Amino acid sequence: MTTLSPTDPTAAAPARTTPTPTGPIPVPPRGAARLDVELVTEALLGRWAAARRTARERAARPELHRPLDATVAEHRERVFAQLQLLAEEGVSRPMLPEHLGGPHDNGANVAAFEELVVADPSLQIKAGVQWGLYTAAIIQLGSEQQQRDWVPDAMSLATPGAFAMTEIGHGSDVQSLATTATYDPATEEWEIHTPFRAAWKDYLGNAAIHARAATVFARLITGGVDHGVHCFYVPVRDADGALLPGISSEDDGPKGGLNGIDNGRLAFEHVRVPRTHLLNRYGDVAPDGTYTSPIESPGRRFFTMLGTLVQGRVSLDGSAIRASQLALHIALTYATQRRQFTAADPTQEMVLMDYQAHLHRLLPKLAATYAGAFAHEQLLQAFDDVFSGRADDPESREDLETLAAALKPTSTRLALDTIQECREACGGSGFLAENQLVGLHQDLDVYATFEGDNTVLLQLVAKRLLSDYTSELRSVDRAGIGRFIAQRAEVLAKRHTPWARLGQDLSDRRSPRRAFDSMREAHFQEDLLADRARVRVEEVALALRPTARMSPAEAAAEVNKHQVEMLDAARAHVDLVRWRAFTAGIEQLEDEGTRAVLTDVRDLFGLTLINDDLAWFLLNGMISTQRARQIGSDLRRLLRRIRPHVLDLVAAFDVRPGHVRAPIALGGEQERQEEAAAYFRDQRARHDAPVSEKVLRERARPSRREAAKHTEAH
Amino acid sequence: MTTLSPTDPTAAAPARTTPTPTGPIPVPPRGAARLDVELVTEALLGRWAAARRTARERAARPELHRPLDATVAEHRERVFAQLQLLAEEGVSRPMLPEHLGGPHDNGANVAAFEELVVADPSLQIKAGVQWGLYTAAIIQLGSEQQQRDWVPDAMSLATPGAFAMTEIGHGSDVQSLATTATYDPATEEWEIHTPFRAAWKDYLGNAAIHARAATVFARLITGGVDHGVHCFYVPVRDADGALLPGISSEDDGPKGGLNGIDNGRLAFEHVRVPRTHLLNRYGDVAPDGTYTSPIESPGRRFFTMLGTLVQGRVSLDGSAIRASQLALHIALTYATQRRQFTAADPTQEMVLMDYQAHLHRLLPKLAATYAGAFAHEQLLQAFDDVFSGRADDPESREDLETLAAALKPTSTRLALDTIQECREACGGSGFLAENQLVGLHQDLDVYATFEGDNTVLLQLVAKRLLSDYTSELRSVDRAGIGRFIAQRAEVLAKRHTPWARLGQDLSDRRSPRRAFDSMREAHFQEDLLADRARVRVEEVALALRPTARMSPAEAAAEVNKHQVEMLDAARAHVDLVRWRAFTAGIEQLEDEGTRAVLTDVRDLFGLTLINDDLAWFLLNGMISTQRARQIGSDLRRLLRRIRPHVLDLVAAFDVRPGHVRAPIALGGEQERQEEAAAYFRDQRARHDAPVSEKVLRERARPSRREAAKHTEAH
Repeated sequence: MTTLSPTDPTAAAPARTTPTPTGPIPVPPRGAARLDVELVTEALLGRWAAARRTARERAARPELHRPLDATVAEHRERVFAQLQLLAEEGVSRPMLPEHLGGPHDNGANVAAFEELVVADPSLQIKAGVQWGLYTAAIIQLGSEQQQRDWVPDAMSLATPGAFAMTEIGHGSDVQSLATTATYDPATEEWEIHTPFRAAWKDYLGNAAIHARAATVFARLITGGVDHGVHCFYVPVRDADGALLPGISSEDDGPKGGLNGIDNGRLAFEHVRVPRTHLLNRYGDVAPDGTYTSPIESPGRRFFTMLGTLVQGRVSLDGSAIRASQLALHIALTYATQRRQFTAADPTQEMVLMDYQAHLHRLLPKLAATYAGAFAHEQLLQAFDDVFSGRADDPESREDLETLAAALKPTSTRLALDTIQECREACGGSGFLAENQLVGLHQDLDVYATFEGDNTVLLQLVAKRLLSDYTSELRSVDRAGIGRFIAQRAEVLAKRHTPWARLGQDLSDRRSPRRAFDSMREAHFQEDLLADRARVRVEEVALALRPTARMSPAEAAAEVNKHQVEMLDAARAHVDLVRWRAFTAGIEQLEDEGTRAVLTDVRDLFGLTLINDDLAWFLLNGMISTQRARQIGSDLRRLLRRIRPHVLDLVAAFDVRPGHVRAPIALGGEQERQEEAAAYFRDQRARHDAPVSEKVLRERARPSRREAAKHTEAH
Repeated sequence: MTTLSPTDPTAAAPARTTPTPTGPIPVPPRGAARLDVELVTEALLGRWAAARRTARERAARPELHRPLDATVAEHRERVFAQLQLLAEEGVSRPMLPEHLGGPHDNGANVAAFEELVVADPSLQIKAGVQWGLYTAAIIQLGSEQQQRDWVPDAMSLATPGAFAMTEIGHGSDVQSLATTATYDPATEEWEIHTPFRAAWKDYLGNAAIHARAATVFARLITGGVDHGVHCFYVPVRDADGALLPGISSEDDGPKGGLNGIDNGRLAFEHVRVPRTHLLNRYGDVAPDGTYTSPIESPGRRFFTMLGTLVQGRVSLDGSAIRASQLALHIALTYATQRRQFTAADPTQEMVLMDYQAHLHRLLPKLAATYAGAFAHEQLLQAFDDVFSGRADDPESREDLETLAAALKPTSTRLALDTIQECREACGGSGFLAENQLVGLHQDLDVYATFEGDNTVLLQLVAKRLLSDYTSELRSVDRAGIGRFIAQRAEVLAKRHTPWARLGQDLSDRRSPRRAFDSMREAHFQEDLLADRARVRVEEVALALRPTARMSPAEAAAEVNKHQVEMLDAARAHVDLVRWRAFTAGIEQLEDEGTRAVLTDVRDLFGLTLINDDLAWFLLNGMISTQRARQIGSDLRRLLRRIRPHVLDLVAAFDVRPGHVRAPIALGGEQERQEEAAAYFRDQRARHDAPVSEKVLRERARPSRREAAKHTEAH
């Protein structure tokens, strides 16, 4: 038994007075598949490549960068000045419709906006408040006359504006807002009023200091009837920045991040604005107070108005992916230079990137970021198709809204998790502000709960999936019902037969290599992910079937008992969407080596998703125990295969100097390593290196291994 | 098929102009088991209850609190002034040994230190640097004379000190530090020298501004022999704060958090200190340069010296748990008051806490925090037993170091995840600095990588587990080997028979209730967690068996291929430790109701751990598919059972006003809810509430349900 000493090699690091960090960073071996970096960069730039390139040059300019140490007040002033610069340069001009003299290029506008995140997320979101929300509300909800009246000053920043939707008491539940706008036919005015503290508008960018006007969401009341939430244009401060009569404002004060934005609260005490200040595209009152709307159903009217504002979610999805790319660029660059602990070669420390645990913590995030980037490009194209009018029908709008509601929570979650993992993977260096990761996490933090709380959005997606499922059932004919029942029986049969996929086992048995190859087949991953997405919805739908016969209160309670499963169903759907987008993205690339490398990355993404939910696949008989047992080592094999391509994969993100300001990712670490290596080389050459006590002691006695051999021989 | 409409109840919220948030916060029904809050508080306070109580009073004092908006410079000055206060009040006096006039009460000292985290983590860590590291190094590594020379000024803060261990090039790998201390017998001096940039000391608290002296870790070289890393007392600044000759310092600048501490770098250019400045308890040189040490093996000597500094890890474990408690107090209090969206009752919005998803995201963190608190008390007692000398033997020290290395990564990870989940669960409010959660996350962030990087520590634990396993094998006699082989065969048999636990199925079949009860049996959870902890180690040990015949380089490469499994083995071990500590903690409580409620919480902890690794348990034949399929609904059932006790469970943490400064957890939300409710009540009483357009439309036509009935009837 004495030869069984698995721990010896990993015990205290061997004595070593001369660590020599040398050797090139691993690159793909000659002849092996290799990523064509420019090709991939081009694919990731997508349809609005030109707009992104210009925006990336802009984002590299130092005058637009996030300060590392500033009070809230200083940071706010800096960002406001930066915003003036952007206004002067007409950065948001592409969003303008033709009748306002713009190109109405929504895709280009959003693409450019997303790139700003690497300059300063505060600047990005402040620009988003001014143009993506406040100005966009006027354009989307107002008449052409209203647009002509208010948009030019909004674009030029002559009128900084707040987007006054959220209230203290109601965040993502916009339908329950309590601010009222009551029409007075005597004066032909609206009276905007905040009835109680919980109805104060809150978290509004620009509200604490800079806003001169606001687009205020309030319940439209005329003739004693509440027509639901509409949007009003309300001046809030005069030219000197003093609050107008009846307007109150409070400062939200310091926040977890985005401190370059003056978030604050607004309240209205019987504030009067003219009748024409109702943004009246989807609802209007005549001078006598008669309400009219092109959309009869109040529910549909509300969701149509809200739907015009989907751009915020679309752009946060892209920004979150871009932020993940920056974080990965920093952490993976550092990991290929930083050396720590001696392992394989006792004269040389290993770079972090060669540790299995390091690959394991970072590469799945890299893979998910690729998936997210391809999925986002699809979302952005869908958004542009709808808003350009090229494909603007109710179904496309609804699909767009669902896709945005699905991707925004996933990418913002990914960004936070990725940035945090990157920060920890950089150790103490990752905690220094100069290395950007902590600031990025602080700023991106709120992306998870604003523009629709992530949980609320995933619930929306789940409802849409359930409603699609139900319509599908409703629409099937008798033959279809038979098919449905057969499918359902198949699922149940699988569930009660863990060996249902026995075929997998028979073909794979005793050949892990074959199992590895087949799990890497696209259809294997797609089948599993698609089956899960379908069955997860089906399970919830069936569980909720009795609610049709319940009172609303009972039904709601029952639905609540399945909320976690609903969210799981939504996540399963998004996973499939992202996997398919990634796969489609690879297929369009016309270089075999590039496709081979990216397919490994896609497999890492797909198998990670499957592995993370492995018990579910097992319990539903969708994967054999043989393959399930194999998946961990397959993932580790993929990590090793992708390892030589890490720097290429990161390079394709086109994160540039100026975006990267982190010294640890700009060669600082490499320089230090080389200096230390030179020192030890020099010492060895001079033969004056001190000898280690440990080595002396080893020399003074027979080695343990020899002693052991000696013992065994006797 | 028309009755199948599972989504209807969850579609757009029903029309409602009068949300009335009312009703008491759910409490346990009369007669049901209920938590004795004071009893649990007492149990959590543990052996050093008195010290904790005093420290909690101190932490509630406003002058010790974290500022919400300050520049780095302002925050540093504030914290330094606070530290002076603590010094004047003799807060760290309990750590002093008798010969320095102290009570040598290490447990009380650490307990009090941990409580500081709710005042300002910067203050806590600055105190930790001064007394827990710099002063402790002198006490632990120095002679009595050295202690008398330097400790009094360290305690009084007359000499602020830095603990100069970490180098830019080497963080957790202390053995590879490159700073040298070369003995010159001619002058009887040490020459401390930084040979290259990577050897600069970095991230040192106090180094940028305040430190007058430093305990510097450097390779001791005398007579051409390198005796490994030792610690030296080195003055670095004069009384005016000017750097002494040969000393260089740089400021680490702003960080992700803990900005009240002046972290910085130090370098030494042939700096000379007297021979007696070597802290000489574990190694000394005579005037002629002869090296002596009470510990022969250089490896053991090094680890003994390092082991004396385990206090840092112990105290971070406790601080992380305390920070989680504060975060949970804030988020769970808010969740019981905040209402959002209409569900069960259309006239009333639901409190967040009643949403299944909300319970699901927060209660497992609450359960893990309880487990962590009980585990920490065991760690603290073990620490005190060793350092008081009551149980100071090599094995106890090693056990203590392993336990600290196991718990610190787990609790700091838990704290970060818990705080982040709490911040997101509070929506936009959670992002405001005044509500404490973002600041807490920023400050605690670095706890994951300092005092031993979490990954490195878990790897240490894994090595210890592997080495214990190997010794166990070595020590078994022939009969034992037979037993081992039989056990191993049993594991393999289970693995290849997913139905091995068929007994579970037979007894549980068709009775989810019985399955629920039996999964809640302590021995069921303990068996699973213990089996996993054992088998995970065994698997790695067997996989590494061939390394015994490999060259060190090959062996290291092979070990690296199993690094992720090693970390998993360590985590499985910690899970078991925490589960057992929680269970032991409950058993000591002499109140049946309290035990019943806490057992539910323990079950939530245990079943969550099992559920998180469910595929592994399935694939190793340790849980039946029947039970595995049941576990999700069992967890949801536990969430509902624990729901009424949430506020009691939080109250037992004894987080006080002054610790909680978050307005959302101090009744602000409740007040707003009540004001809004009163407004709507009043409106209803006056009969002047506007009527909803939606309601009018509904009234104007037969309801859909009636229409549907009508259709069906024909």
